[in-house]
Amino acid sequence: MKKMNLKLTLLILISLGFTLPQQKQHIVFFGDSITQAGVGASGYITVLGNLIKEKGKVDQYQLTGAGIGGNKVYDLYLRADDDVLAKNPSTVVIWVGVNDVWHKRTHGTGTDADKFEKFYHALIRKLQAKNIKVLICTPAAIGEKTDYSNELDGDLNKYSNIIRDIAKKNNCELIDLRKAFLAYNLANNPENKKDGILTTDGVHLNDKGNRLVADEMMKALVK
Amino acid sequence: MKKMNLKLTLLILISLGFTLPQQKQHIVFFGDSITQAGVGASGYITVLGNLIKEKGKVDQYQLTGAGIGGNKVYDLYLRADDDVLAKNPSTVVIWVGVNDVWHKRTHGTGTDADKFEKFYHALIRKLQAKNIKVLICTPAAIGEKTDYSNELDGDLNKYSNIIRDIAKKNNCELIDLRKAFLAYNLANNPENKKDGILTTDGVHLNDKGNRLVADEMMKALVK
Amino acid sequence: MKKMNLKLTLLILISLGFTLPQQKQHIVFFGDSITQAGVGASGYITVLGNLIKEKGKVDQYQLTGAGIGGNKVYDLYLRADDDVLAKNPSTVVIWVGVNDVWHKRTHGTGTDADKFEKFYHALIRKLQAKNIKVLICTPAAIGEKTDYSNELDGDLNKYSNIIRDIAKKNNCELIDLRKAFLAYNLANNPENKKDGILTTDGVHLNDKGNRLVADEMMKALVK
Amino acid sequence: MKKMNLKLTLLILISLGFTLPQQKQHIVFFGDSITQAGVGASGYITVLGNLIKEKGKVDQYQLTGAGIGGNKVYDLYLRADDDVLAKNPSTVVIWVGVNDVWHKRTHGTGTDADKFEKFYHALIRKLQAKNIKVLICTPAAIGEKTDYSNELDGDLNKYSNIIRDIAKKNNCELIDLRKAFLAYNLANNPENKKDGILTTDGVHLNDKGNRLVADEMMKALVK
Repeated sequence: MKKMNLKLTLLILISLGFTLPQQKQHIVFFGDSITQAGVGASGYITVLGNLIKEKGKVDQYQLTGAGIGGNKVYDLYLRADDDVLAKNPSTVVIWVGVNDVWHKRTHGTGTDADKFEKFYHALIRKLQAKNIKVLICTPAAIGEKTDYSNELDGDLNKYSNIIRDIAKKNNCELIDLRKAFLAYNLANNPENKKDGILTTDGVHLNDKGNRLVADEMMKALVK
Repeated sequence: MKKMNLKLTLLILISLGFTLPQQKQHIVFFGDSITQAGVGASGYITVLGNLIKEKGKVDQYQLTGAGIGGNKVYDLYLRADDDVLAKNPSTVVIWVGVNDVWHKRTHGTGTDADKFEKFYHALIRKLQAKNIKVLICTPAAIGEKTDYSNELDGDLNKYSNIIRDIAKKNNCELIDLRKAFLAYNLANNPENKKDGILTTDGVHLNDKGNRLVADEMMKALVK
Repeated sequence: MKKMNLKLTLLILISLGFTLPQQKQHIVFFGDSITQAGVGASGYITVLGNLIKEKGKVDQYQLTGAGIGGNKVYDLYLRADDDVLAKNPSTVVIWVGVNDVWHKRTHGTGTDADKFEKFYHALIRKLQAKNIKVLICTPAAIGEKTDYSNELDGDLNKYSNIIRDIAKKNNCELIDLRKAFLAYNLANNPENKKDGILTTDGVHLNDKGNRLVADEMMKALVK
Repeated sequence: MKKMNLKLTLLILISLGFTLPQQKQHIVFFGDSITQAGVGASGYITVLGNLIKEKGKVDQYQLTGAGIGGNKVYDLYLRADDDVLAKNPSTVVIWVGVNDVWHKRTHGTGTDADKFEKFYHALIRKLQAKNIKVLICTPAAIGEKTDYSNELDGDLNKYSNIIRDIAKKNNCELIDLRKAFLAYNLANNPENKKDGILTTDGVHLNDKGNRLVADEMMKALVK
C-alpha cells in the first residue's frame, strides 16, 4: 500500500510539472589576482552571477571566489584543501599560469614547464578524487599586442599549449581564454596597443575583459 | 609470586648485560641531487652508514635516501606522501635550498623567500603530524670562497637564516651545514678557491665533503 | 690630338668588351657566434662567396667575417674600431640580437630594449660617419616552432620590430631573416619541431640555414 | 734689468703671502642615479663642495655631476665623449656597479663579470688617454645588513673585487665605499637592518650616507 501511494504521488507530481528540489551547483573559482578581483563590484565572477540571474537560474548556482594575488600553480596545490575542498564545491574552475610565466622575468621565481605540468595534474587529481567537476582555463594575456611581440608571448603560448594538453589528458573541459582574448584583440585592437582593450595593464581585466571572461565561463558552466 | 618472578628475571637480564629488543630507527634523507648522490659508493649516506657500523650500532639504524636532482622545497612537499610517508620513517632529515636560490639565476625558476618558508612549514607539519622526528639542514654552499664573494652567497645566507628560524619555530633540530662548510673552508681554503675543497663544483660533494656531512649528521642522529 | 687619342682608345676598349678596373667591394659581416661560424667550411659567408663565384663576380667582392660568440649590440659597439673600421670596409652587414634577448633568461645579462636601440643607433652612426654602407638583419630564431610558442618568441619579435624601425630611421637596407626563417618553417616544418629545419639547436645554422641566409644576403648585396 | 725686476717682484709677492693664480681642478663625478642625486641640495657632491668651502679651497675645485639613473658601466662608456670629455675635466671619479649587479635580478639585464671588466678598462683608457686623473669607487650597498645576508651581497662583493683589481692594474686611486659602508654599519647597525642607516632603500643615500661618501671623496681628492 505504502509503495503504491509513493509511486502514485510521484506520478502526480511529474504530471503536474513539478520537479524534485535540486541541489545547487557550488562553483569555486580558483586562481590568482585576476580571480581575487573577480569578486569585486565589476569582477568577472560578479558579472557571471548577474548573467545567471538574468537567465532566471539564480537558485541553481552558488559562485565562490578563491583567488590570491601572485599565486602560481604550486600555491594552488598547497592551499587546495583549505580553500577549495573545505568548501565542498561540485565544480571548480582553475585559472592559473600568468605568474608562473611572468615571475621568471620579474622575480626569477617562475615555474619550470615540467613542474607546472606535474603540479597541475596533481591538483586536478586531488579535486577529481572528490568527484568534483574540474574546468581549466588558459592564461589570457600578458600584453594585448596582436603580432606576438608582447615580451612573454612565446612562453605564455607554450604554457597555454601545456594546459590544452592537460585538459585532454584529464577529461577536463577547457575554457580557452587566451584564444578568446587574441580573437577579440585581432578584431578590436587595430593599433596593436599593449593594453587598454580587455585589460588595464596587459594582465588585469577592465570592464570589457570581465564581461568577455564571464561570457566564456557562462558558455562552459551554464548549459 | 608472579611479580616477584618478573622483577627477578629483569634483574638477572640486566645483570647479564642483556637489553630488551629495540625497534630500529628508520631515517629517511629527503632532498635534492646532493642527497640523490648520497647513496652512491662514496655518498654521505653511505659514509654515515659506515660510521654507524664502526660504532657497532648497525642494528639500530636503517638509512634510506630520497633525493631527486633539481628539487626545491615545493617539490619535496609534492612527493612527501609517496617518497617519505609511504616508507614509515621514524626520523626524516630534510636538506633542501640550493636550487631554490640557484635556479633564480640559471632558470628564472627559484623560490620566493616567503613561499620557501610557507612550503617548508607545511612539509614539516605533514611529517610531524605522523609523529616523525624532523631534522633540517642549511644549504652548504654554492661556491666555496670564504670572503662572501660567491655570486649567490647573499641569497644563500638569507635562506639559511630562514631555515634556522624555521628550526626554532618548529622544534626541529638544526644541522647547520652552511656554518660547518664555511668554518672548514676558512681553515682549509687559504687561496680562496671557488671549489675543490669540499665540493667538486661548488655545490656537489667530493670525498671530504661527504665525510664532513656524514660527521655532522652523525653528531645529530646517533647519540 | 691627345684628347682624340684618348677618346679613340676608350671607344676601342669598349667595343672590345673591356671594362675599366673596378674597386672591389669590401664587405664585413659583424655579429655573434652565428657569424663567427659563418666563415667555416659550410658557413653562410663561405656559401655566399661560392654564390658570388658562380655568378662570375669573384673579383668584385671581398668578404670578411667579424663574429664573436656571445656578442650583444654593445659588444659590437665596443669593438667596432678595432674589428671593423680598421679593416676599411665599404659595406658592413650587422647581424645581432639573439644574445640580447636570450641572455636575459640564461644569464640575467640581456639588453634592455631602450639601450639596445641606443647602442644600435650609435653603432650605425659610427660606421656611416666613415661613408660605409650599412645593412642590418633581424635575428632569425631562438626555436623554430611556427605557432609562436618558442619561449622567447615574444621578445625576439619585439627586438625584430625595433630593428625594422632602426633600418627605416637610419636609411639602412634591412635583411629580414626572422621573416624569411618563419616563412620557410611555415612551409617546411609541418610537425612544429623546435629545431632541425634551418638550425641545429634552434639558433645556430645547419646547411639549409646557411644556404637560406646566403641567399638572402645575395639578394641584398649582389645586384 | 727686466729679469732683476721680475725676481724682485716675485720675492715681494711671496713675502706678502700671495700665490700665483692656480688653475682650478675640474672634477667630474661619473655614475648612476646615486650620482644623479649627488648634485641635489643634500647630495654628496653638494656636501663635498661645502667641505671644500670650509677648508677655504673653494677657488681650487670645480665639481660637476654626470650621473644618470639606471646606468651600467657600458652606458658610461657610450656617453663618455659627450658627458665627460666634452667638459674638459682634470679629474674623473667613476662610481658604477650597482645596476650591473641589481638588474640581473630585476630586469634580466645586468652585466656579465667579464664584460663589466672589459668596458671598465676601456672607459679608463679613454679618459687616461686625455691625461685625465681617474679615481674609481666600489659600489656601496644593495642592502645594509651586516651578516652578508642581503640578497645580492655575493655578487656585489665579486664586482667590488673586480673593481679593486682594475684600480691596481690601471694605477687608479680606489675609493672603497663598500668597505667604508660595511665598517660604518658594523658599528652603527646593531639590529642588522636592511636600510635606514646610510641609505633610504638599501641603495640610495640618506644624509648620513651622503656625508660618509663626501668624507671619503674628500680624503681622496683634496689633499
